[in-house]
Formats: sequence, structure tokens, C-alpha cells
Amino acid sequence: MCQLMGMSANVPTDARFSFTGLVERAGRTDIHRDGWGITFYQGKGVQEFRGLSAGSDCDVAQFIKTQRIKSDIVVGHIRQANVGALTLENTHPFRRELWGRYFTFAHNGQLEGVFSDLPLGRYKPVGTTDSEHIFCWLLHQLESAFPQGVSTMSELYPLVYKCLSLLHDRGVCNVLFTESSALMAYCSNHLHWITRRAPFGPALLKDIEVSVNFAEETTPNDVVTVIATQPLTTNEEWTRLRAGEMVVFEKGELTYQIGGEDV
Amino acid sequence: MCQLMGMSANVPTDARFSFTGLVERAGRTDIHRDGWGITFYQGKGVQEFRGLSAGSDCDVAQFIKTQRIKSDIVVGHIRQANVGALTLENTHPFRRELWGRYFTFAHNGQLEGVFSDLPLGRYKPVGTTDSEHIFCWLLHQLESAFPQGVSTMSELYPLVYKCLSLLHDRGVCNVLFTESSALMAYCSNHLHWITRRAPFGPALLKDIEVSVNFAEETTPNDVVTVIATQPLTTNEEWTRLRAGEMVVFEKGELTYQIGGEDV
Repeated sequence: MCQLMGMSANVPTDARFSFTGLVERAGRTDIHRDGWGITFYQGKGVQEFRGLSAGSDCDVAQFIKTQRIKSDIVVGHIRQANVGALTLENTHPFRRELWGRYFTFAHNGQLEGVFSDLPLGRYKPVGTTDSEHIFCWLLHQLESAFPQGVSTMSELYPLVYKCLSLLHDRGVCNVLFTESSALMAYCSNHLHWITRRAPFGPALLKDIEVSVNFAEETTPNDVVTVIATQPLTTNEEWTRLRAGEMVVFEKGELTYQIGGEDV
Repeated sequence: MCQLMGMSANVPTDARFSFTGLVERAGRTDIHRDGWGITFYQGKGVQEFRGLSAGSDCDVAQFIKTQRIKSDIVVGHIRQANVGALTLENTHPFRRELWGRYFTFAHNGQLEGVFSDLPLGRYKPVGTTDSEHIFCWLLHQLESAFPQGVSTMSELYPLVYKCLSLLHDRGVCNVLFTESSALMAYCSNHLHWITRRAPFGPALLKDIEVSVNFAEETTPNDVVTVIATQPLTTNEEWTRLRAGEMVVFEKGELTYQIGGEDV
């Protein structure tokens, strides 16, 4: 299993605080030592970092914690390998271009043996994970349904929900998925989110003694949502997603919600 | 115009030395201040770094200079923008997947106004550079010619040469292009290469007072080729590519050479 972290904000926002909490779980407070990756969107462009060592003692991950990389959407992942060797091409997030946008996908769960019948189109996995396979399949579904693209991303949400629900019925499928404007999150079993807005207060990480006073880091108009496999802070109330639920955040705001049964 | 840097080696090799020389030209000894990027291949997987500030004062670029990232193939680029805004999606190298491999492309030159008739297939530019457009067009040409892929990459070389020659006839087109095993380099006007092998000796960078004794960093079997817009060292003999010439390096060795007229 793996852990996921995502962010959606209405202004370019520094995700260091959440990333710092996440990478503690990559070897120190938890066992996800098999590589990590994080993708930062700035507009339609992306900056990505990944590594094969445990995030908690990887130089690149430690470096990112010192950087104020401001972005609109973030997708991060720490890996505990089940399927697929320990190679760079098997680290999440995965990225492909469709309709002139970079789509990014990170997955937590396991679908071993049940994904080989999901047909691939033009997108072919580079690595050997079930996760990259379902990402390629998902993009093929989207492209087949909308060969000319969509006028707003919200046209995609019902189909994304349908596809991920199909996977949820056959295994564990917690997913973060984005194309630069909307952060989609599908929950099979573990996924939590929190939206921070004015009045901002202090937050305390769960996995390492680090706190931040968001009041000092933000303006009153900022809206920032963070999603993570498990809550990253101890003094805030996170909302737990239900099994089979999908939510979408745009500019930090919840704009779509569907499905879900009590866990 | 921009500057390119590439490496091909028969063992995973640390490209810090060449990258250090390159980024000096990104603002200090030369004027390529409009972003930079570098892609490191480890097998089929990639690790990439990019930034919008000048490489010579970018924190991420400075950090990479301290890292011993060992890789088989490297493609680096520093940008002086002509076409396309200063955004992340306009920074090189560009990357797309084809046949289950990550193809990476970096371009130096300008084709403004002459590329819009080059048809795009399924690959769509995310940004607005002529460079990304010709990369998408090139992949479309390769895929159209070999819809099922190729059994060895060398099947692609004549077609890559033909496509890039067509661009060379219509503008300036210095290109580095790879899919993880072969580093292809096409020269319109400025591109130089050097192959280092035993007995290794010292090398002195041209743009900053840094030297390395490769004898201490290598084993006798290592073969490492570096390609750059302008020679990166002062005490070694670099081979200048001719106008319209394409070369391919695999595991550090020159394996294909075609075209070219005296400059």
C-alpha cells in the first residue's frame, strides 16, 4: 500500500508543510520506503520530483521541504511496493498528455490480477505497476468518450467516477487525478480532506514536531484544500471520504461530490 | 536561442560536471536566463528537474550540482525565449510516451511561422513553443510509420533524420532526442561532442573554475559521451557536428552518423 497527498488552492500555495508530514511516513513514522514522487502544477505546466530512496532520507525530498514551491495543484505519493519492481518508472505520480493538458495520476491500493482485461488504447505503460495500467486505461476511456476534448472539465467527472467505481468494485482504488484545474479524489477505503480558509489558525503535524501558523502565510481570500490518506495534522478536523465516494476540488473549493457508502 | 547538453554512457554516470558548466551559461557567462530543465534516465524511468528562473541562480539547479545522480542518458536545456511565454509548460525538455517508452526532446533554434503546417496527430502541445510543436509532429511521424513500434531503435534513425532535415531546411534545428537507450543529436549550426574513455584524464570547465579528474571518477571500462551546443571544457578536443548532420550514441558509443555538409 502507499500514501497519497494532494492540494488544490485558489492562489499558488506552498505545500511544504503537508509534504513534510507526508515524507515522515516514508520510512520514519510509517513503512512507505519504496520511492516517492510529487508533481506541482503552475498553470498548465508541471514541475515534478521523484526518487527511489525512502522519502524520509532522500536528499531530493529533504531539499523540497526547504523550497517554497508555489502551485495551484499538487499530487504527491509515497510508495510501498506491491506490484512492480523498485524502479523510477514505477514511481507515482504518472503523467500523460491528453487534449494538450498534462494529466497526473497517483494510486493507493492493489488490483493485482484483475486489471489485465482493462483494454489499453494509445497509452502504454512504461513500467510494470497495476497503477500505471489503470491510469492508461482511464485516459483511453476519457479519450474514447470525448475524442475532441471537453469544453469544461466537469463533463469528465461522471465518467471518471464510473471508471474508478468499476475498479473499486474489484480491489482497492484510492486515487488522486488532475489535469491542472480540477483535483479529483476517489476513495476506496482511506482518504481524508480539509479545506482551510480565513480565519486561518495554527496547525500541528502529526508525524513530526512541526507547526505552522497559516494566518502568517496566507491572505484572507486564500482557500486551500489538502487531501491525504490519513490526516496530516492533529489539531484540525479532517473529513473522511466514504467508500466509493468521489470528490472534486477546483481552486480549493469542493465542486462535485458523488457516491459513497458509510465505511 | 538556447543551449543544449546531453550525455550517453555505458554505465550510470554522474553528469554534475557538465551540468555545472551548462548552468553557468544560464545567466552568468551567457544570456540563457528564461528557464532550464534536465531529464535523467535510469533505465526506462526518468527523473526530471526544471525551473523558470535563470539556471545560474536557481535553487533547484544549484541543488542538482551537489547531487550524484547517476544515469544512462541525460538531456539538458537552458532557454532564452523567442517563441512562447515564460511558463513551465514552455521549458524544455519535453516528454511524451510512445510505445511504452518516454521520449524526451530538447530544441535549440527557431522555426517561427514555418511549423504551423506540420500536422499534429494525437500528441498536442501543452505550451506555445515551436519546439514542442515539432516534437509532437515528430512523434506523430514515427507512430504513423511504425504503428506497432519497432524491434530496435535503429529502425527509427533514418526517419528521424528525414524529419529533422526537413526542419533544418526551414530554420534552425539543433535537437537532442531520446527514448532511454539511444541519444540522437541533429545539428543545424552549433553542436559539439566528445567521447571520454580510458585512459581518463583531467578536464577543466570553460565557464567556471571547476576541474575534475575523470580517472578518479570512472572505471577503465566506462565510455561516456557528452554533447553540448558549445564545448564545455577547455583542455579537451570536441568534435563539431556539421550542418545537417545527425549522430546517435548508444551506451556512450557513436553508432550512427548521417548527413552533414561543411559549415
